[in-house]
Amino acid sequence: MNSKNLYLVDVTLRDGSHAVKHAFTEEQIRVVARSLDQAGVKFFEVSHGDGLGGSSLQYGLSFVNEMKLIEAAVDECRQSEVSVLLIPGIGTKDHLDEAAKLGAKMVRVATHVTEADVAQQHIQLGRELGLKTAGFLMMAHMAPVDKLVQQAKLFESYGAEIVYIVDSAGTLLPHQVKDRTAALRQVLTCDIGFHGHNNLSLAMANTIEAINEGATYVDGSLRCLGAGSGNTQTEVMVAVFERLGFLTGIDLYPIMDAANGVAAQIMQRPQEVTGTSLIMGYSGVYSSFLLHTQDAAKRFGVDERDILVELGKRQAVGGQEDLIFQVAAELAN
Amino acid sequence: MNSKNLYLVDVTLRDGSHAVKHAFTEEQIRVVARSLDQAGVKFFEVSHGDGLGGSSLQYGLSFVNEMKLIEAAVDECRQSEVSVLLIPGIGTKDHLDEAAKLGAKMVRVATHVTEADVAQQHIQLGRELGLKTAGFLMMAHMAPVDKLVQQAKLFESYGAEIVYIVDSAGTLLPHQVKDRTAALRQVLTCDIGFHGHNNLSLAMANTIEAINEGATYVDGSLRCLGAGSGNTQTEVMVAVFERLGFLTGIDLYPIMDAANGVAAQIMQRPQEVTGTSLIMGYSGVYSSFLLHTQDAAKRFGVDERDILVELGKRQAVGGQEDLIFQVAAELAN
Repeated sequence: MNSKNLYLVDVTLRDGSHAVKHAFTEEQIRVVARSLDQAGVKFFEVSHGDGLGGSSLQYGLSFVNEMKLIEAAVDECRQSEVSVLLIPGIGTKDHLDEAAKLGAKMVRVATHVTEADVAQQHIQLGRELGLKTAGFLMMAHMAPVDKLVQQAKLFESYGAEIVYIVDSAGTLLPHQVKDRTAALRQVLTCDIGFHGHNNLSLAMANTIEAINEGATYVDGSLRCLGAGSGNTQTEVMVAVFERLGFLTGIDLYPIMDAANGVAAQIMQRPQEVTGTSLIMGYSGVYSSFLLHTQDAAKRFGVDERDILVELGKRQAVGGQEDLIFQVAAELAN
Repeated sequence: MNSKNLYLVDVTLRDGSHAVKHAFTEEQIRVVARSLDQAGVKFFEVSHGDGLGGSSLQYGLSFVNEMKLIEAAVDECRQSEVSVLLIPGIGTKDHLDEAAKLGAKMVRVATHVTEADVAQQHIQLGRELGLKTAGFLMMAHMAPVDKLVQQAKLFESYGAEIVYIVDSAGTLLPHQVKDRTAALRQVLTCDIGFHGHNNLSLAMANTIEAINEGATYVDGSLRCLGAGSGNTQTEVMVAVFERLGFLTGIDLYPIMDAANGVAAQIMQRPQEVTGTSLIMGYSGVYSSFLLHTQDAAKRFGVDERDILVELGKRQAVGGQEDLIFQVAAELAN
């Protein structure tokens, strides 16, 4: 087996924000950041779960201003570098400017898989600021392969150094990740990344498929802390990759200590695959629809699973929350 | 994609016994059995975690006699059939005889991967009793592929109708499962099964690999309830298989209700991949070594992970518990 050099980007302090209702304290950020740094993680991400500027009534208010958290994380770094997530429309160029001034060294500019074109100026700003700059194609299952390829090429044309396939709903199957990664590898010259969620217990399988087809950046979180059923488990990836000959530069015991000694302390609940997260993975619906769906299920006396499955069939996307009540009403009849 | 007909054997009430310290009550068995039966599960297993006769100081005393539990499970079945596990040396032919009288319809006779020859009379008895009879090759990673093939052929020659690759320590990687299943498929005429554990977050990936190479019997447990990090998650398999075109005859919502409404109530802890279970998967050491290893780590002031990794390198097997203290002493020097 040939060895491969990989970058594992840990998202405990960004995607994990969803799992703790955006309540990270500065001290929590510091201890996790320190433990990631000591374990040899090259990049880890710190932002509101929905990216810079996400703190709001709509997406959930942060307990501590994320800029303060980014500053604290940077302060703990001896060898790691801090990444931030930016979803244009939620975060702005000003947010990115500020994060860069505070010492962030990487930005991942995220859009819905069919909307890369809204990110051109943010990608360009990332490059101008001297950041490692990536495009992040969320809900990647909602575009056919050729559309995904087209959007990835857009990101590359704007200057993205990495384009990520982002399985936001944890719904892609291994052969789908394989096909998507292989298609991108054929046409892109920049690096390829994969960000998985575990709603179908397939995050690790999908990550391995992506790597085998040429992805070199892969996301994980300690103890899976993240949205839905959580992310690919960072410390487990380090163990599995060692056995597969994939090199991350991360030491196994220290990253295990970061997970079980540090991150475990800040978890509010275990990251299991339960009923709701399973149905979201099964139907390909993102977690932001969940609360409205539960409301609608109660109001119309229908099974919330039926609503989610129907929303998945209709390829509902963020902003179409009204559709939830429409579907519930139809199912009730 | 071609559809495939599969048998999903649920082991919540057998492997899950490890996860509740063998404390299942008759009422717990009844409610889980009923929910599995209603969801359309063809076979589910009921026995002490270490198989018939496992209740002992060495393996852990059962709270309720397993024969009583088997009888209760059979009583709840309208369409399902009850399987039992038998490890020769722990259980006897008398145990199997009794279980069959109580209505068990399947037996899986389990041996260490290199010791199928101890099971000849038990396989033959299973067939004589009219049970669906399988051979269960535990710790399958500890034999090279040709040895595994040879042992599987022994099982088949004794009359086994299914031979299982059993990844007891949750340590096999997807390509290893693929190679092993393909090798068995080439030489066996009987059915092939796969039993996975999730210590490396690969149980689902490995199960899919096995099916793609010809396995038609796969094990799972509700909410992963089982030894180590638990088993492949039954209800998640049903969802994933539906998307892959694999047919199990199990209905998704009822099996989810069995998991999240019923099994979740009897869990003592979530089935996460934590430090200890990860190292067992990483090093290929079975969970029965764990308590002694923790004792030895304390006594000699060494990291229990180092002991487990070294035991894995030396291919330690059950019965060699003295080796644990020897390794700890060596590491301390």
